[in-house]
Amino acid sequence: MKYRIEKDTMGEVKVPADKYWGAQTERSRNNFKIGPSASMPQEIIAGFAYLKKAAAYANCDLGVLSIEKRDSIAAVCDEILAGKLDEQFPLVIWQTGSGTQSNMNLNEVIANRAQVLKGFEIGQGEPFIKANDDVNKSQSSNDTFPTAMHIAAYKAVIDITIPGVEKLRDTLNAKANEFKKVVKIGRTHLMDATPLTLGQELSGYVAQLNHGLKALKNTLAHLSEIALGGTAVGTGLNTPKAYDVKVAEYIAQFTGLPFVTAENKFEALASHDAIVESHGALKQLAVSLNKIANDIRMLASGPRSGIGEILIPENEPGSSIMPGKVNPTQCEALTMVCAQIMGNDVVISVGGMQGHYELNVFKPLMAANFLQSARLLGDACVSFDEHCAQGIEPNYKRIKELVDNSLMLVTALNTKIGYYKAAEIAQTAHKNGTTLKEEAVRLGYVTAEDFDAWVKPEDMV
Amino acid sequence: MKYRIEKDTMGEVKVPADKYWGAQTERSRNNFKIGPSASMPQEIIAGFAYLKKAAAYANCDLGVLSIEKRDSIAAVCDEILAGKLDEQFPLVIWQTGSGTQSNMNLNEVIANRAQVLKGFEIGQGEPFIKANDDVNKSQSSNDTFPTAMHIAAYKAVIDITIPGVEKLRDTLNAKANEFKKVVKIGRTHLMDATPLTLGQELSGYVAQLNHGLKALKNTLAHLSEIALGGTAVGTGLNTPKAYDVKVAEYIAQFTGLPFVTAENKFEALASHDAIVESHGALKQLAVSLNKIANDIRMLASGPRSGIGEILIPENEPGSSIMPGKVNPTQCEALTMVCAQIMGNDVVISVGGMQGHYELNVFKPLMAANFLQSARLLGDACVSFDEHCAQGIEPNYKRIKELVDNSLMLVTALNTKIGYYKAAEIAQTAHKNGTTLKEEAVRLGYVTAEDFDAWVKPEDMV
Amino acid sequence: MKYRIEKDTMGEVKVPADKYWGAQTERSRNNFKIGPSASMPQEIIAGFAYLKKAAAYANCDLGVLSIEKRDSIAAVCDEILAGKLDEQFPLVIWQTGSGTQSNMNLNEVIANRAQVLKGFEIGQGEPFIKANDDVNKSQSSNDTFPTAMHIAAYKAVIDITIPGVEKLRDTLNAKANEFKKVVKIGRTHLMDATPLTLGQELSGYVAQLNHGLKALKNTLAHLSEIALGGTAVGTGLNTPKAYDVKVAEYIAQFTGLPFVTAENKFEALASHDAIVESHGALKQLAVSLNKIANDIRMLASGPRSGIGEILIPENEPGSSIMPGKVNPTQCEALTMVCAQIMGNDVVISVGGMQGHYELNVFKPLMAANFLQSARLLGDACVSFDEHCAQGIEPNYKRIKELVDNSLMLVTALNTKIGYYKAAEIAQTAHKNGTTLKEEAVRLGYVTAEDFDAWVKPEDMV
Amino acid sequence: MKYRIEKDTMGEVKVPADKYWGAQTERSRNNFKIGPSASMPQEIIAGFAYLKKAAAYANCDLGVLSIEKRDSIAAVCDEILAGKLDEQFPLVIWQTGSGTQSNMNLNEVIANRAQVLKGFEIGQGEPFIKANDDVNKSQSSNDTFPTAMHIAAYKAVIDITIPGVEKLRDTLNAKANEFKKVVKIGRTHLMDATPLTLGQELSGYVAQLNHGLKALKNTLAHLSEIALGGTAVGTGLNTPKAYDVKVAEYIAQFTGLPFVTAENKFEALASHDAIVESHGALKQLAVSLNKIANDIRMLASGPRSGIGEILIPENEPGSSIMPGKVNPTQCEALTMVCAQIMGNDVVISVGGMQGHYELNVFKPLMAANFLQSARLLGDACVSFDEHCAQGIEPNYKRIKELVDNSLMLVTALNTKIGYYKAAEIAQTAHKNGTTLKEEAVRLGYVTAEDFDAWVKPEDMV
Repeated sequence: MKYRIEKDTMGEVKVPADKYWGAQTERSRNNFKIGPSASMPQEIIAGFAYLKKAAAYANCDLGVLSIEKRDSIAAVCDEILAGKLDEQFPLVIWQTGSGTQSNMNLNEVIANRAQVLKGFEIGQGEPFIKANDDVNKSQSSNDTFPTAMHIAAYKAVIDITIPGVEKLRDTLNAKANEFKKVVKIGRTHLMDATPLTLGQELSGYVAQLNHGLKALKNTLAHLSEIALGGTAVGTGLNTPKAYDVKVAEYIAQFTGLPFVTAENKFEALASHDAIVESHGALKQLAVSLNKIANDIRMLASGPRSGIGEILIPENEPGSSIMPGKVNPTQCEALTMVCAQIMGNDVVISVGGMQGHYELNVFKPLMAANFLQSARLLGDACVSFDEHCAQGIEPNYKRIKELVDNSLMLVTALNTKIGYYKAAEIAQTAHKNGTTLKEEAVRLGYVTAEDFDAWVKPEDMV
Repeated sequence: MKYRIEKDTMGEVKVPADKYWGAQTERSRNNFKIGPSASMPQEIIAGFAYLKKAAAYANCDLGVLSIEKRDSIAAVCDEILAGKLDEQFPLVIWQTGSGTQSNMNLNEVIANRAQVLKGFEIGQGEPFIKANDDVNKSQSSNDTFPTAMHIAAYKAVIDITIPGVEKLRDTLNAKANEFKKVVKIGRTHLMDATPLTLGQELSGYVAQLNHGLKALKNTLAHLSEIALGGTAVGTGLNTPKAYDVKVAEYIAQFTGLPFVTAENKFEALASHDAIVESHGALKQLAVSLNKIANDIRMLASGPRSGIGEILIPENEPGSSIMPGKVNPTQCEALTMVCAQIMGNDVVISVGGMQGHYELNVFKPLMAANFLQSARLLGDACVSFDEHCAQGIEPNYKRIKELVDNSLMLVTALNTKIGYYKAAEIAQTAHKNGTTLKEEAVRLGYVTAEDFDAWVKPEDMV
Repeated sequence: MKYRIEKDTMGEVKVPADKYWGAQTERSRNNFKIGPSASMPQEIIAGFAYLKKAAAYANCDLGVLSIEKRDSIAAVCDEILAGKLDEQFPLVIWQTGSGTQSNMNLNEVIANRAQVLKGFEIGQGEPFIKANDDVNKSQSSNDTFPTAMHIAAYKAVIDITIPGVEKLRDTLNAKANEFKKVVKIGRTHLMDATPLTLGQELSGYVAQLNHGLKALKNTLAHLSEIALGGTAVGTGLNTPKAYDVKVAEYIAQFTGLPFVTAENKFEALASHDAIVESHGALKQLAVSLNKIANDIRMLASGPRSGIGEILIPENEPGSSIMPGKVNPTQCEALTMVCAQIMGNDVVISVGGMQGHYELNVFKPLMAANFLQSARLLGDACVSFDEHCAQGIEPNYKRIKELVDNSLMLVTALNTKIGYYKAAEIAQTAHKNGTTLKEEAVRLGYVTAEDFDAWVKPEDMV
Repeated sequence: MKYRIEKDTMGEVKVPADKYWGAQTERSRNNFKIGPSASMPQEIIAGFAYLKKAAAYANCDLGVLSIEKRDSIAAVCDEILAGKLDEQFPLVIWQTGSGTQSNMNLNEVIANRAQVLKGFEIGQGEPFIKANDDVNKSQSSNDTFPTAMHIAAYKAVIDITIPGVEKLRDTLNAKANEFKKVVKIGRTHLMDATPLTLGQELSGYVAQLNHGLKALKNTLAHLSEIALGGTAVGTGLNTPKAYDVKVAEYIAQFTGLPFVTAENKFEALASHDAIVESHGALKQLAVSLNKIANDIRMLASGPRSGIGEILIPENEPGSSIMPGKVNPTQCEALTMVCAQIMGNDVVISVGGMQGHYELNVFKPLMAANFLQSARLLGDACVSFDEHCAQGIEPNYKRIKELVDNSLMLVTALNTKIGYYKAAEIAQTAHKNGTTLKEEAVRLGYVTAEDFDAWVKPEDMV
């Protein structure tokens, strides 16, 4: 492979000749061979591209960067956002906990690419744009990385998570309405209970997701606060006056999202409670979705030895050995995603709790876990919606059979003959394998006519 | 010990003669010898007392319970709330996951105590009040236990957690103002960084707690929804019309808190996402407080071989072997509480994710962990506030010594001579153990006058 | 209340006149009002009593403590172990993270009680035994607390956890043998699969518990290492030569457990990886038990609308509203315990990962969570065994009905007619609601005679 | 793109013409668009290649597969292991929880590739090898996937984790020996304590890692048990006699690792406690490493305002804004890895606890998280070793300065003048900012000569 020489304050480094990155990126590549390469999430790179462009605009407006440099920086940022430079970001999550080297990766790539756009070869000629002094102007890794985190996290929640959950919620809501009169057995403690309608059962899931969405949206205000302008320790050293507000406005403009400058920059560098807060809501959704997916696979279990009250789409052969088997695979994918998010929440909390003084140095870790959760949750909801929820149908025959046979219909008699006599009827029918009506009449507690009038599943829902 | 005979639908049970509880409580005592006895939180018992009284009032208003019975039930509930019957609730957390037996414990105690208040001996005479038919009227364990959970949780957050956190927040805020001009070294990556003021550093903690409090308050709406009126599976079977709204109004009146009936009762029985949501905010506060407490003990470390920038109260001898030792014990208690809450969050999530069909049967577990977290967090903040935060004082001498000596003041030169030359100055001073000024002048990059004019810690904050 | 004056190196403190504790205990009571009082586990107090007695013996043997003092200290320790001084230990978990104040609580109570045993009133006369200089001789909180933790943890595992798990394992094993020929439907993905016997199904649980027990026993070696002799930072300062080995021998003798002195005392003070390791095994058992308990409640679900293949004991009325309902309450208690242990594992890991330099200061937290898990796990297994597992019976009628009806018996044809034709038979029977045999013959793939010869559930297990 | 038509039991599917996979893989690609494509770990694919080859050999030996087919299957497996078919495995983690589709992916690729090796084009000609009937012979997804998991996990632990941890352990051990006489201040509660040597401090880390390695090795026995031979539900349906033992022998032979057939196949399919157990040990190591890395960065903090007792390598510029700054970046990468593993442990436990009946369907999730942890832990230890631990050097000047100045040396006087007088000396020196010796003499408790003779840091370690 061909190399060129790049320099930083520590000296010279050999860099692959065809890559835009510079000395510090290369040092990081060599010093952190941990896990697969290029694991730093692409969404973070994009977040940086937005903020580098915004910083160039703000710096220019405030008189500390020329229009020419601004436009040059912005042009490369646009290329990055268009995905044209994806090969230029080789670093891993498991680097310095401030993400400094990814910030420098951006600074170096932008500077070198700008030089090329000016007609030079990479690394040749007096740099028109300097990585630290121009691209990074009025910035520090300490305020850029958390800003990139918030941009990436907010976008993922808005673009992927919320639409995915809402799509599934809408389907479940439509199903809840469609099946609102399908009376079925209820189950508590996994045991037969009084009836409800299938629509009511599904409406509980809808309510869970609505609460979860509301909780998630409640966290967006914190996530909309960006650290940029705090620079090294939160004081904003080396930034022009009013820069923080202006750069946030540009980020809001470029992303189309309501970002604002953080009220307290010290908090914004030293802690990432906004990530903790927002991921807490993702975790709540995972808790809800695990319950929902689990219910659906139990309700659909069978075909002959399970509950079998609903039918779900048969998407693929379920077994490499058992012919004809079909499984609730979407439920399984979704519950695996939920389990992942449960663990990611611990990762993020453990990272968040260990900040030291002016800086939390678990930034790449927190970002990567958040983005994984946000995407998996959204993707899994869409997959589950399209390949499972939309196809849910009642198994009317089975539902009717079970509800007619249920001993818990006896509850309707509580207000007529009291809890104790009702219990005696149910226990006797259970012991004898008979019907409630038979035993109710035999025990002399209720006449057949009253029984028919009082014990109507459709009136019990 | 003397016993009397009590009965339930399964038959006779011997019960200690002097206790108000009945057959089902006694069965539970015998069947669940898991962990210390009477571990069901007292706050849950109180929550039940509020709701049993409210149900009696609502039932009476709606014509299904006599005024005499209402008043009789209410009188016992008031005794419970006054702590007069604390010995009557012997059950453990680790019972049925619906808390049915604790609901019955309340029903039985209220019925038997009411009988005594009528002048009978316990268990004698035709029961004036029946446990299932009167005390539990229009109720099921399935809607009462989650209601008791929400009452207990909401009250704990309002009465203990929020005031505790706010008290600490107020102290930190006052300290942040008091020390807003105390310029000190900043630290990122635990390494020397550019300066900030002690007030700024503390203001970051205040911002964390403010965000955490806001997050916690955001969850209260969900927690204010109560399940009562859903009865067995959420349909409200065996309740009079409009009961759910009315009973919530009474609960709101009796507790002084804004409880409302849950919009969707199926969700309210089958999941406890409100508990998950609200505990998520407690966990966020724990994440914040761990960072804060950890910083404070590092800043106070020493007295001679640590950081030593602040002084904290010396509350007790710190060592049984090292004479004169004093330790940051309040920080330790607080961080232990934070770790506990981190784990409790996993407990609650694991419990929340495993609901089945119409009922989540991890209710006592979720309640107990929530209440522990809410109380520990509030108590620990108060303790930390009174015995540590209020006594924080700068160690002015040490602060000045460190800031004057710092190499990171060189950052002020970036905009004058560029990042690279500034780095050279800092590296040379580091290598030679000299001052920035010496090396800046020796390298010929800055005059002594300019250095003094440009590098002023107090202008860098 | 009456008080007396006690002193420590910080000055005078008023202490309740009738209590044996001294100044430092009282300071801690006042400084740490966090959660319920006296929450420090009793097992830790007992662990201290063992080690204080052992230290007195070792000190005496090595010539630094008189026989008279040794016997005096030992006498009080024996009283503590006999439960006679339970009211003398009022401190909470949430104190200093080294547990120094609980160590001093022991030192003070032993010294003052010894004085009383000499015929004085509490706090009067020249102390015969001094808290720091005699009771605590050759010790530091830093090595005593972790020693008490290991003693308490080891004992709890040996006395409660292992016997409890083994008891349940033995019952399940007996059931596995008893039902080894009961052919039933298998289920994978909750869907019907090829058959197995109920005994085989239960044998899987036995294998899980055996593996868990083996894993737990593997951790005991680490837990048997005790820190005593390391004193303040692990160097053993202020201990007589060979003290560490000797004191461990005495602890082994007094407890009847194979404790040895830790090979590396620095590790033993600064980290509590033995607690992390051993609790990891408790967590593994919780993972196993959750699966087992969950299976059992699903297999027992019904009585009419569930799986219903096994019957479990009906221990108590299951519902305050649904007459005659019975629930798998032991499964619920056990799964709640499992969820608690899952969270406790996070607590312990978070505590373990945050040690600083020569001392981990999350000791009381780690101890309390470990002991809760160890006890709950053992107790819950015993409860589950006695009130559920021992009563498991097959529902033969239901089992036969389901297995006869199963479509997955078709798998037996794979090796005869190939996977694809077998699948076609199963799919057709599923679509038409017919039997495999009908469709196998109708499709012309198998004769009726061959079908009967080839598809025999009892040959498929 | 060009396509060909592939079929499975559900019908026809269009598959990219140049890919070896078939209908079921393609269905999975379309049905599970969750997260990045091809996320199923490559190690799992390799595990499958080992076991498919072993199954072919065992089947051949036992007379149910021809030598020609065996060799054909084995040839493709060898290609897979050589990395020649990496593009043929496009599936994601978030598929069916049994990993059935990845099993089929292997079956399909092997069958189609074998056909090509016979000289046909993909998908043309009567298949020489059939995916279900030949490649999958005597297998089910239910026993192959867990076998692949164990192969992959065991190999990762042996090849990556253990060597990585041992490499770091060896370096720390060498440093512990090298610095065994460097007397330094100890710190407990982050506060100055009695001295120890730097070697002793490091020896504690070595002991932690040794205990962790031992714990990890203890888990290998469970991980060496493989499920193969259990087929669909553990009964071994459709396998020739003695197949399970033989196939395990071939896997052991091909991998060079001591795999054996699982004693109980029901456990091996329905639970993955071996993964839980082994990951528990990885988590223990993460707990240890977090402590170690955290200590090292605190000890190295500075250069002028921190602890500064050790020097660590300066690997890269630490700040994009603060010139000359160098950070403990390897410590940060390692602690981020530790936090990840903490969360992965929760993922694995949550997955492990939710098995249902005869199958745990969180297999891909558990495998992926385990493999990530095993690799990250090993890689991070190597990185930390090479770029940090090997370069640790004492800052002798700083160490001496701090130890000479310490007030906790007073502890040496306990056995001479008692704890109380020693405390008075230390407290007075602390208050007056003087030395212990000055105050000891002034208070008249010790002569200057005695002080010098008794208080020698080098004798206190």
